[in-house]
Amino acid sequence: MSKSENTPTPLLPFSSDYMEGCHPAVLTSLIRTNLEHTFGYGTDEYTASAKEKIRLAAACPDADVFFLVGGTQTNSTVIRCLLRLWQGVIAADTGHIATHEAGAIEAGGHKVLTLPHSLGKIRAEAVDRYVNDFLADGNHAHMVAPGMVYISQPTEFGTLYSLKELTAISDVCRRHGLFLYVDGARLAYALASPMNDVTLADLARLTDVFYIGGTKCGAMFGEAVVIPDPSLLPHFFTLIKQCGALLAKGRLLGVQFDTLFTDGLYEKIGSDAVGYAARIQDAVKACGWPLYLDSPTNQVFPVLTDDELCALEKEADVSFWEKADEGHTVIRIATSWATTEADVEKLIALLKTIRK
Amino acid sequence: MSKSENTPTPLLPFSSDYMEGCHPAVLTSLIRTNLEHTFGYGTDEYTASAKEKIRLAAACPDADVFFLVGGTQTNSTVIRCLLRLWQGVIAADTGHIATHEAGAIEAGGHKVLTLPHSLGKIRAEAVDRYVNDFLADGNHAHMVAPGMVYISQPTEFGTLYSLKELTAISDVCRRHGLFLYVDGARLAYALASPMNDVTLADLARLTDVFYIGGTKCGAMFGEAVVIPDPSLLPHFFTLIKQCGALLAKGRLLGVQFDTLFTDGLYEKIGSDAVGYAARIQDAVKACGWPLYLDSPTNQVFPVLTDDELCALEKEADVSFWEKADEGHTVIRIATSWATTEADVEKLIALLKTIRK
Amino acid sequence: MSKSENTPTPLLPFSSDYMEGCHPAVLTSLIRTNLEHTFGYGTDEYTASAKEKIRLAAACPDADVFFLVGGTQTNSTVIRCLLRLWQGVIAADTGHIATHEAGAIEAGGHKVLTLPHSLGKIRAEAVDRYVNDFLADGNHAHMVAPGMVYISQPTEFGTLYSLKELTAISDVCRRHGLFLYVDGARLAYALASPMNDVTLADLARLTDVFYIGGTKCGAMFGEAVVIPDPSLLPHFFTLIKQCGALLAKGRLLGVQFDTLFTDGLYEKIGSDAVGYAARIQDAVKACGWPLYLDSPTNQVFPVLTDDELCALEKEADVSFWEKADEGHTVIRIATSWATTEADVEKLIALLKTIRK
Amino acid sequence: MSKSENTPTPLLPFSSDYMEGCHPAVLTSLIRTNLEHTFGYGTDEYTASAKEKIRLAAACPDADVFFLVGGTQTNSTVIRCLLRLWQGVIAADTGHIATHEAGAIEAGGHKVLTLPHSLGKIRAEAVDRYVNDFLADGNHAHMVAPGMVYISQPTEFGTLYSLKELTAISDVCRRHGLFLYVDGARLAYALASPMNDVTLADLARLTDVFYIGGTKCGAMFGEAVVIPDPSLLPHFFTLIKQCGALLAKGRLLGVQFDTLFTDGLYEKIGSDAVGYAARIQDAVKACGWPLYLDSPTNQVFPVLTDDELCALEKEADVSFWEKADEGHTVIRIATSWATTEADVEKLIALLKTIRK
Repeated sequence: MSKSENTPTPLLPFSSDYMEGCHPAVLTSLIRTNLEHTFGYGTDEYTASAKEKIRLAAACPDADVFFLVGGTQTNSTVIRCLLRLWQGVIAADTGHIATHEAGAIEAGGHKVLTLPHSLGKIRAEAVDRYVNDFLADGNHAHMVAPGMVYISQPTEFGTLYSLKELTAISDVCRRHGLFLYVDGARLAYALASPMNDVTLADLARLTDVFYIGGTKCGAMFGEAVVIPDPSLLPHFFTLIKQCGALLAKGRLLGVQFDTLFTDGLYEKIGSDAVGYAARIQDAVKACGWPLYLDSPTNQVFPVLTDDELCALEKEADVSFWEKADEGHTVIRIATSWATTEADVEKLIALLKTIRK
Repeated sequence: MSKSENTPTPLLPFSSDYMEGCHPAVLTSLIRTNLEHTFGYGTDEYTASAKEKIRLAAACPDADVFFLVGGTQTNSTVIRCLLRLWQGVIAADTGHIATHEAGAIEAGGHKVLTLPHSLGKIRAEAVDRYVNDFLADGNHAHMVAPGMVYISQPTEFGTLYSLKELTAISDVCRRHGLFLYVDGARLAYALASPMNDVTLADLARLTDVFYIGGTKCGAMFGEAVVIPDPSLLPHFFTLIKQCGALLAKGRLLGVQFDTLFTDGLYEKIGSDAVGYAARIQDAVKACGWPLYLDSPTNQVFPVLTDDELCALEKEADVSFWEKADEGHTVIRIATSWATTEADVEKLIALLKTIRK
Repeated sequence: MSKSENTPTPLLPFSSDYMEGCHPAVLTSLIRTNLEHTFGYGTDEYTASAKEKIRLAAACPDADVFFLVGGTQTNSTVIRCLLRLWQGVIAADTGHIATHEAGAIEAGGHKVLTLPHSLGKIRAEAVDRYVNDFLADGNHAHMVAPGMVYISQPTEFGTLYSLKELTAISDVCRRHGLFLYVDGARLAYALASPMNDVTLADLARLTDVFYIGGTKCGAMFGEAVVIPDPSLLPHFFTLIKQCGALLAKGRLLGVQFDTLFTDGLYEKIGSDAVGYAARIQDAVKACGWPLYLDSPTNQVFPVLTDDELCALEKEADVSFWEKADEGHTVIRIATSWATTEADVEKLIALLKTIRK
Repeated sequence: MSKSENTPTPLLPFSSDYMEGCHPAVLTSLIRTNLEHTFGYGTDEYTASAKEKIRLAAACPDADVFFLVGGTQTNSTVIRCLLRLWQGVIAADTGHIATHEAGAIEAGGHKVLTLPHSLGKIRAEAVDRYVNDFLADGNHAHMVAPGMVYISQPTEFGTLYSLKELTAISDVCRRHGLFLYVDGARLAYALASPMNDVTLADLARLTDVFYIGGTKCGAMFGEAVVIPDPSLLPHFFTLIKQCGALLAKGRLLGVQFDTLFTDGLYEKIGSDAVGYAARIQDAVKACGWPLYLDSPTNQVFPVLTDDELCALEKEADVSFWEKADEGHTVIRIATSWATTEADVEKLIALLKTIRK
């Protein structure tokens, strides 16, 4: 099948960051290793090498690292395996696990305990208050105990936790004996943001588990789960298998992450995309459009009139975010490792035309 | 990382059929489409094309087809979604779901009801007797009701159900209102066997759900679930997501299966591997070794003395199957889409040397 | 062990409605039948008789009726068995299943989808909007589908749905294909309220499943699940067993409900308790205390100063409900089948003394 | 409803040990305490007293004791809460959890790993071999790990583990880090058997959790779960609630077990029933009938011709066990706390008449 015949004038591709295959360097590695014969299930040397590079990058030499295939799979596997039966997981009410995972956390037996968000983020104080209220409640033995805090970095809104905010949440978690788990589906775009002051080493130091997203950050697929204290998740290999999340040809994940963590590729992917997003956001501002939020990462959220949106969608593929009011719509423009400078320039030119 | 430095003399690769990447034609398609921008979650045109080709190949024009990533994932997702809460699944006691899926079926809430196997197969009569005994038991309202039969084609032993046997099992299932589900992880090697008389169209006609294996049959990863009656699994897309089995870049699966079902590639992959296995099996027989079973597909099971095995393992990577007796071991030699004629000839020469 | 030695001056017992054994008439029936030999698991004649009396009382001659032991057990069993895997249950954020069942619904695999409450109630319009918003969401295939509405009658606040409100919710449910399930843990106190216009027959006509509470309404234990359309929950007996909710000596439940539904006992239990609560509520008002809400059933919610509460608790056993403000507390005074006129008079006298 | 009108000539009641209400002394206690007002959920003084008496009886002063309602509920709750996600439970293939609990263990997410039985028992050697084979299996990380051994005392066949056998199983469990859990649904009848040498203190010393059956041993309902090391099951109260197994009026269980463990009632109930069974078994032998097994407890298993069974069933209520051969049937005659000497004599007379 040839797609080109059906799509004579392709739209400018800014709808999301998982709409292409993988970064050319990752593809090259997959091609180079394609016919090699290795052991299965991640027991190969590429996987071992990728794990070691991630340990180095995150300055956590004892960490266990496991590679899974996708984000919802990773979240549901980690959360099911970390929580005990009587516990639930605290998350922003906009958190991916609370909204767009089709009930995967509940299917694993656990309640998502939601807190109101502020641009996708929750605050340490709110977590602390939730746990204190729970403990003070005379009926708490009849209630789901908070056992973990889930946050995403960047959030579903592309916003960032600062090191100070993350440290505060980590402190609350440790004080109360809660696990802290960070969903890094788009972590490359956080790490590369000029507004960011949270490093991989900070994540390893402040959290119990976090994952480094591959699917949206240059890999064909794959997420790297980092467990700084390897005693935390006993028999995790078996549980990954039980959750249907163990890739037979595990080396495919190893090869990809080995490449992403060689010669700064993961950083470069992040900074290119964030840089393009910043140029687009500047153009949006220059055109005088309001922004839904001032994005520090790879997603830009202008508020357009419906006529403007209609004009834009004729030439660009962007995402609907939400209705702002009767005549206005918030859209999301996403850049990624696959975004080209040429397309960014065309989009900016298009935006200027529409706003003229 | 370069693997070649560490492994100066690679072993002859016959340990299993999922130790390499993917068939070169599949890789070529992934390379060609890599930078295209498509919709996610399998809503792209490659996936649509692959589905249509599978419907044609299986002569089931109304079927739904879904692409998942791996075998255990596919089994646990399909079985959890098909069974009702009070039901269990009948399987051979050697069935993959009964042994090597880390309890995935039970984690989904269902009991595996095992029947004794004969070279990996169960018989229609045994299923019928099981159901009749269940119904006749005065306590059966306190017991798990059989709701499905799971078989694999080829089986974990590489053996095949004949069309007559499959039809008999299908008849028993329909008479008793049980679903019939076929695990086709290695289906290419069944379809290509000279001993096989079960076509894809037969599977579509006689079963409720079956899957066409990609991971072990030429794809990088991926299994195609075929549901001849599309009303059977309502909301299956959402449930795939809930089970952590929905690939964000679904088109990766579509591209692969579109290629596998173009120009007879899936058939060719099967027949090459089965042909090589037959040559190896003939050589084993000619050398005078007993066979654990006379394999019709891509796995060969000679019984070696432990000294012979020791010699063989110095130059070839094969699998331990089971101890035959004190001094003898059953091994498994597996061919695949990645097996080369040169390696087959080297292995046969090696076997002759050992048996001299 | 004799309790009386340890508690020389028992407090006036108004803390809840499940703190005593059972209504004397129920006890008499249990005594009378104690040594009879019957079949187990609810296949006895007392259970058959109780079912028939409930069918008559609810004017639903075809209904299936099952007797379970407790409320959380009933909710988790019914909800798990009614919902399909992709569905969640809509409830008020104060609903028992959302707060005080220790995650039983999630342990059964399902999400509780909460709506804001108004004195424990949700409105048909809010349900309708939730479902419409869900259906309009472009991502809804990645989300938990609403499959059922759960309400309690009376609510956890002792408030009542009017027939008009219940009919509106039922209409919304039927229009959208959602099940409607009513938790009637305290149903006797709703049915007996002068403010109530919803009969058992209305519940049978307007809902898919409801339960008639025994534990809080005169039985030692037990809840009667009524399923107006018996085809709705296939294999429910087996699933009750699987959920650990099948009482071996099922006739204990049958005997109790047979007695409760003989000679208007269930109605009398309700009206006595509601009458006592009204007298207490009138006294509270007469004393000039504000009410948290004007209760139509067996629970009264005065707002006391903390000094008043301190004085009250020296002689009466009441429940903390919530802090009203710095110096005030909402308490709950509950009557039940076990409340005596003498204790009501003592409590009223005590209240007057405190407020003097 | 009066049952007596419908059953003019009641059958001799020997079908099972849960067909009546409760021992008169238990009933007397329930009557005496019926109108007392206590705290709910087992936080009352009767429950505290019962726990203390059980700790004394089992010589385990630090044990936690929880009271649940029924056997399947107890098994599924304990096993779900004790096992970790990657573990299954070893049981005889005739174990109650493997056969007659409607898949409750699997619904809780765990596999039952069955071993062949010998009159309902499994041997320490078989457990040891199972675990060793598991550990030696190269694929065991893909398999369900044995995490617990489940046995019943007496077994479903009424047979007994000797102290030596139990000690051997306990040793194997401790050596391999497996929990040992004993289902004591009929424990009174084991403790009272002249063939028994396993005391409550032995159970507390040799197992991790066991339960003392009430439902079949004199209580209306209820099972006492004993956890010698109280740190073993953290948050068990909350999990009992989550499993729908927490009785609101927990004191009903406390009152019953407090009575059963006062003045040797539990022992007396056991010895009366076992004595009656022995008399019946002797009569069966004297009549020349073969026994399916020589029962040491409260169940007798004669093998009758079908004509004899037909004659017996006209006057006695007994249980079908299994077909012995074409013309013979194994039946079960069960005694209990409710059996009277008069009925035993009538049954023996009847047996003699039939065999004449």
